[in-house]
Amino acid sequence: MSQEFSYDILEEIAVLSENTKGWTKELNLISWNGRPAKFDLRDWAPNHEKMGKGITLTNEEFAALKETLTKM
Amino acid sequence: MSQEFSYDILEEIAVLSENTKGWTKELNLISWNGRPAKFDLRDWAPNHEKMGKGITLTNEEFAALKETLTKM
Repeated sequence: MSQEFSYDILEEIAVLSENTKGWTKELNLISWNGRPAKFDLRDWAPNHEKMGKGITLTNEEFAALKETLTKM
Repeated sequence: MSQEFSYDILEEIAVLSENTKGWTKELNLISWNGRPAKFDLRDWAPNHEKMGKGITLTNEEFAALKETLTKM
């Protein structure tokens, strides 16, 4: 069963790395299916033509991550 | 085809959130298949009995993420 979904990259915050095939690991603000934006860490093909695996973070999770990293 | 793999959680750095079923979103240092440790953002069942989707970050990607977040 296939499921349609939409996404809208609202803000490209940072590109963390790029591999030899041009795929990038990015931190973005993304709205999934028209819902409120979430922070998203994910691999992307060039020009965002394909998405790889990744993880979304709520505002609260993102704040906790930020607090952790600034202490390290 | 199934593939065997091993993982070893070397350091539990932070728990970013916990949902009503007890699953947690965590930042850990994990060695996959005996390889050098990577930073790992992932959902976990209670007591790490099951792992959900997540993303690994190299040291360089983690440093880039940290630099980005400390500027926000």
